[in-house]
Amino acid sequence: MKKKVVLAFSGGLDTSFCCIYLSKDLGLEVHSVVVNTGGFSEEELAAIEKRAYDLGVESHTTIDETENYYRETIKYLIFGNVLKNATYPLSVSAERVCQATAIANYAKKIGAECVAHGSTGAGNDQVRFDMIFNTLIPGVEIITPIRDLKLSREEEIAYLAKHGVEINAEKAKYSINKGLWGTSVGGAETLTSNQYLPESAWPTQVTSTAPQTITIDFVKGEPVALNGEEIGAVKVIQHLQELAQPYGIGRDIHVGDTIIGIKGRVGFEAAGPLILIKAHHTLEKHTLTKWQLSWKDQISGFYGNYMHEGQMHDPVMRDIEAFLDSSQQTVTGRVIVELHPYRFIVVGIESAYDLMSTKFGSYGEMNKGYTGDDVKGFAKIFGNQTIIWHKVNRGGAE
Amino acid sequence: MKKKVVLAFSGGLDTSFCCIYLSKDLGLEVHSVVVNTGGFSEEELAAIEKRAYDLGVESHTTIDETENYYRETIKYLIFGNVLKNATYPLSVSAERVCQATAIANYAKKIGAECVAHGSTGAGNDQVRFDMIFNTLIPGVEIITPIRDLKLSREEEIAYLAKHGVEINAEKAKYSINKGLWGTSVGGAETLTSNQYLPESAWPTQVTSTAPQTITIDFVKGEPVALNGEEIGAVKVIQHLQELAQPYGIGRDIHVGDTIIGIKGRVGFEAAGPLILIKAHHTLEKHTLTKWQLSWKDQISGFYGNYMHEGQMHDPVMRDIEAFLDSSQQTVTGRVIVELHPYRFIVVGIESAYDLMSTKFGSYGEMNKGYTGDDVKGFAKIFGNQTIIWHKVNRGGAE
Amino acid sequence: MKKKVVLAFSGGLDTSFCCIYLSKDLGLEVHSVVVNTGGFSEEELAAIEKRAYDLGVESHTTIDETENYYRETIKYLIFGNVLKNATYPLSVSAERVCQATAIANYAKKIGAECVAHGSTGAGNDQVRFDMIFNTLIPGVEIITPIRDLKLSREEEIAYLAKHGVEINAEKAKYSINKGLWGTSVGGAETLTSNQYLPESAWPTQVTSTAPQTITIDFVKGEPVALNGEEIGAVKVIQHLQELAQPYGIGRDIHVGDTIIGIKGRVGFEAAGPLILIKAHHTLEKHTLTKWQLSWKDQISGFYGNYMHEGQMHDPVMRDIEAFLDSSQQTVTGRVIVELHPYRFIVVGIESAYDLMSTKFGSYGEMNKGYTGDDVKGFAKIFGNQTIIWHKVNRGGAE
Amino acid sequence: MKKKVVLAFSGGLDTSFCCIYLSKDLGLEVHSVVVNTGGFSEEELAAIEKRAYDLGVESHTTIDETENYYRETIKYLIFGNVLKNATYPLSVSAERVCQATAIANYAKKIGAECVAHGSTGAGNDQVRFDMIFNTLIPGVEIITPIRDLKLSREEEIAYLAKHGVEINAEKAKYSINKGLWGTSVGGAETLTSNQYLPESAWPTQVTSTAPQTITIDFVKGEPVALNGEEIGAVKVIQHLQELAQPYGIGRDIHVGDTIIGIKGRVGFEAAGPLILIKAHHTLEKHTLTKWQLSWKDQISGFYGNYMHEGQMHDPVMRDIEAFLDSSQQTVTGRVIVELHPYRFIVVGIESAYDLMSTKFGSYGEMNKGYTGDDVKGFAKIFGNQTIIWHKVNRGGAE
Repeated sequence: MKKKVVLAFSGGLDTSFCCIYLSKDLGLEVHSVVVNTGGFSEEELAAIEKRAYDLGVESHTTIDETENYYRETIKYLIFGNVLKNATYPLSVSAERVCQATAIANYAKKIGAECVAHGSTGAGNDQVRFDMIFNTLIPGVEIITPIRDLKLSREEEIAYLAKHGVEINAEKAKYSINKGLWGTSVGGAETLTSNQYLPESAWPTQVTSTAPQTITIDFVKGEPVALNGEEIGAVKVIQHLQELAQPYGIGRDIHVGDTIIGIKGRVGFEAAGPLILIKAHHTLEKHTLTKWQLSWKDQISGFYGNYMHEGQMHDPVMRDIEAFLDSSQQTVTGRVIVELHPYRFIVVGIESAYDLMSTKFGSYGEMNKGYTGDDVKGFAKIFGNQTIIWHKVNRGGAE
Repeated sequence: MKKKVVLAFSGGLDTSFCCIYLSKDLGLEVHSVVVNTGGFSEEELAAIEKRAYDLGVESHTTIDETENYYRETIKYLIFGNVLKNATYPLSVSAERVCQATAIANYAKKIGAECVAHGSTGAGNDQVRFDMIFNTLIPGVEIITPIRDLKLSREEEIAYLAKHGVEINAEKAKYSINKGLWGTSVGGAETLTSNQYLPESAWPTQVTSTAPQTITIDFVKGEPVALNGEEIGAVKVIQHLQELAQPYGIGRDIHVGDTIIGIKGRVGFEAAGPLILIKAHHTLEKHTLTKWQLSWKDQISGFYGNYMHEGQMHDPVMRDIEAFLDSSQQTVTGRVIVELHPYRFIVVGIESAYDLMSTKFGSYGEMNKGYTGDDVKGFAKIFGNQTIIWHKVNRGGAE
Repeated sequence: MKKKVVLAFSGGLDTSFCCIYLSKDLGLEVHSVVVNTGGFSEEELAAIEKRAYDLGVESHTTIDETENYYRETIKYLIFGNVLKNATYPLSVSAERVCQATAIANYAKKIGAECVAHGSTGAGNDQVRFDMIFNTLIPGVEIITPIRDLKLSREEEIAYLAKHGVEINAEKAKYSINKGLWGTSVGGAETLTSNQYLPESAWPTQVTSTAPQTITIDFVKGEPVALNGEEIGAVKVIQHLQELAQPYGIGRDIHVGDTIIGIKGRVGFEAAGPLILIKAHHTLEKHTLTKWQLSWKDQISGFYGNYMHEGQMHDPVMRDIEAFLDSSQQTVTGRVIVELHPYRFIVVGIESAYDLMSTKFGSYGEMNKGYTGDDVKGFAKIFGNQTIIWHKVNRGGAE
Repeated sequence: MKKKVVLAFSGGLDTSFCCIYLSKDLGLEVHSVVVNTGGFSEEELAAIEKRAYDLGVESHTTIDETENYYRETIKYLIFGNVLKNATYPLSVSAERVCQATAIANYAKKIGAECVAHGSTGAGNDQVRFDMIFNTLIPGVEIITPIRDLKLSREEEIAYLAKHGVEINAEKAKYSINKGLWGTSVGGAETLTSNQYLPESAWPTQVTSTAPQTITIDFVKGEPVALNGEEIGAVKVIQHLQELAQPYGIGRDIHVGDTIIGIKGRVGFEAAGPLILIKAHHTLEKHTLTKWQLSWKDQISGFYGNYMHEGQMHDPVMRDIEAFLDSSQQTVTGRVIVELHPYRFIVVGIESAYDLMSTKFGSYGEMNKGYTGDDVKGFAKIFGNQTIIWHKVNRGGAE
């Protein structure tokens, strides 16, 4: 009896090659899977399924992980205001972890002896897939034809042709990865250090120019409503993206450390994520204490980096999530945002938990809770150790 | 013989009141000082001096601290990419610390028995002045007439009039504080949580619309040239500000924790600082290692917050500066920036220290230094502890 | 009608003075309260009550907070292995926060207009009491006769005598503060920097010399059994203390930063806390991942310091507790400890969650999960960025 | 012409095997090197040299790195008070990094094409050697016969016998690694989780029982004198170890995370390091500010862990060292220590930089620098944000 292999399948050249290779050369029973984390349309999913069966897979399965992806991953990226290197919302990294986990669970469910992914030996994804498979399905063999065989595009196309499969041989000028939490764009420019992507490279062209004001409502840190309509977090993210991306908002180039130690550069457009993170962060600045903000920063920076490195199943991530969940108890309110071409403004917030309430003193105006004498005393004591240090070490005093 | 008092003098209503009050009511010999940290023009300084003598001071001194301010403070805000709460370059806080220090040193130099500042009892500045005076000139008495007397504007104006001093009684709609590292703007809107500043409130109106590309050269983390012209850091900051602010770049509202525990909100325009920080940070992403970037983030967040709180003379700040100095050894190169109305793009960088050199492997392409098998081994070992954890705790293995 | 004041009462000279002073001089109706956090015996509590009524209080109440104290405070000090400055289990600080909170709640319950404590103006306790009262019962007036009047012992004794109260005028050579989480000892030596406490100063003299082996069982981080007897955490702490303190274990001198900025030095004996923390930490080293241990360290250091400063009611403390709770899910097992005069040894642990299981490879022996080649690959990739850095910056390569 | 190989040689079975194997089987010209980091006596070094030539090496070199080891590594472990997992002074890890670096530099100096080490595939050392060689001598081939061939002891002995080399076939019951910064002890018990090392396993038996008082003088954080004798840091460490280890001080078992993700357990005796670290830390508690102590803790924990993982050549380590150097400017003074069987007491310190000087207020006594009213004001402002938070969120106010 043939061994079963679950293949992470996208319908592209590499995973199409894998389909044939796993079946014909390795004699495996191929079960292809595509995990939708919000980046595929119905039509795209249907086309991927059709291609899988055209390639002769034993079965093809579409797993919709969009809600899970939000609940287990994106939610915490919002809670943590995670922008890697102060720039990148982790659009691709976060998604890959979710996909690998779903595939591992599927392989376990159908009792597959093998699992395959089409990553090359050059990027982050191979590490994420390998590690998560090693962790969640430790007995299952991992097969990586593209990484192992190191074939050129041309060789893959020729191999497929030999097996009667025609595939569009043309390589797109820009490699695009679209997901719920943003779209990445790689191309000739991102392989340099000094060139920016041209206007034409961006998947979403700028077609909206009239400024508009929108509102986002958060409940305990989660975005629940857009312009007053309670549609739930996933739809808020999707609708906001549709609304804001045509303004050209949220475009940038991320330069970062790959898991394998080299530097990588990638363009992205992520209007929705960038607006949500700044809106959420602004609401937090009004509702959290200084040390909540400070610790959230430290802990979330690590959380984002470690997720990026594929380590989502280390239990420390659950501990950090518990911290973040706790911190969001008062992050409830409305954020007002103005959209403009290529930029947005967070106008302000309204919240019953706003610590800036004028009831307790306005900045720059005299306060009810304390006097100038209290502040004099405070300044003396707050600075006391530094005062003593200078007396001891700088002879500040006689 | 009269006691000497050194007064931090700005020429405004509050410090004009202090001049007369210290001299007439308290019988002190008033030595007024204005510390220029780059925010005053020659004309403004001359006007302040004239006013001081009109108010009858014994002496008036202008101290130019611009270079010191850059070297002891702003340099480290650049090294640390410090944006408080991911937004605010600390325009005002940083400046106040520098001014208080200069005044303390001046008071020591002329042997003053007293030192006075015009802060109210409602803001951050009083704490900064008090603490730094307590630290650097511990025997010297601090006098704060505005905080202690709690007079209204009208009462101050009447008092001055009684002493023959006419002062412009009209309060500006927006309170503006201009410095080398940005300009703050407070007004009716910033006292609310949900209103943004109107276009007219911004000191610099948007008059530049044609995009332009500029370059900034850094040497060991310091900006030394603009568009190839080596003019030194202070001039780079000033020229960049003149060039970029008319685009409306670097406007935002900061919401933050004051030293005295309440939340405060303030608008600012800081095109130069925001461009320099993002340019510098991008250069660092290319030239520093992952853990350098990570530790810089943690340590700089604290540095900015603690400076904001006026604690610049705690020796821990010197230790952090030593870390930051060390980290900048390879942060040398050119950053290319595009200016557009209300926004800017960091196009890319060129550096002999760029770790993204294609000599060592390009992201997404196969690398010379290692093989796919190396990465397989890496993924196994890198994930080993999580793998074991799951075996022990989730029954992942038999 | 007289106003009600709740007085934190210990039966000592200072709070006895307060009793009379609040009633006679200020005309208040005094309700004295003693909060037991495990440091008082039944006899001591009865004596305190008797003294209160002898001093003429309107009512006296004993609040037993021992279980709360453990559940809300000590539990997290164990979870976090908190030793301030790597030495001190926060015996007194933790207790004071708990007592102030209980008193605030009691004052609210009986509708008191005032609350009083007997702290001097020289220590940490005044800040803890003030802050917690300001936070939990913001409308209630805080009265601090000892701090305000600055009377000498002799003056207090004379005042009491004048009101017919005889009090033991002799000051103990060492000031002792006994609690569930350890006993502090202050005296002439702790006011110097270079002297240790003499043997006679320690409240518990060394009477046990025969080594013995004990076991402590933890369930999700909480100590639940001593020598196999399931008696619950509070009793484990108390019995362990009784068992181990006569060995002279857990004595040391703590040097630390007070809330008010000066350095303080205090002796303590805390056999139970020190054994529990090292036992717990050892169990964690076997059951938690590297990054769980690392983040627990960072976050717990802050937690301990901030609790020490009386800031237990900042919501960031709840967030950290959520992290700590989450981290303890697998901290279950038995720890074996050997007691010797003046020291103890953690012999080892037994746990179903032990990640050191030989099933997954023993240190120094070849492992089943990976090969030497995997490690070669790992070493190459793990060091890749440093390798590249040296090539770029040190000319390591051609 | 034969290729040159530099072999890290210790004279034990594994590296003796390597000598013959590299020469006879691989046809290389073997240059053996032993790096002394303070753990070898003159006699031991002579014996190692003799064995090397008996095994037919082309050349043998002894490199004394003791001073370098102190200056580049141990010094910072003292500055940082580094105890991994609050227990282990990193005796072995630190040494290995120093040795690998010295060997790499030697290989570069003599122009070797290859470098070899005798590590197995089971421990940390292979990663340290590999990474440091990959970093410092990237073109040089790394040969690891023991890891690659996976021979048993018996096979290695037989191979050596076949080549006419007799070697003591008996395996020691405990594997001992002696160095300047402590001695590690591994054996049957350390492979379990629940057994302690028996008395007989410790290399230094307890022969000193009479308590004695000693002094250690530090200058800018470095130990320079023992009992008043200025002998320099290396000799202080060595003499202190000779003096204190016969008391049985500094014995413990470390449980930690290996670089390769498994947990490891190892016994150690390190009287000198443990006394120096606690003495140094105590001096710091008197001379550094609260935030210096706090940041040193965070940054040093990482420094120790990352050094343990062999990453000493990442430039972030230089940045941290710059921080630590800066922090030691005032860590000068004398520490008094009492030695007892199995334990020691830090009696106290004397320092011109002591911030606990009674000139600035003694803990628990009224202070000259501020009043009770100042502290009242301080408590109000210091708690202000928490107070507001409770008013907003807990209805603490009307």
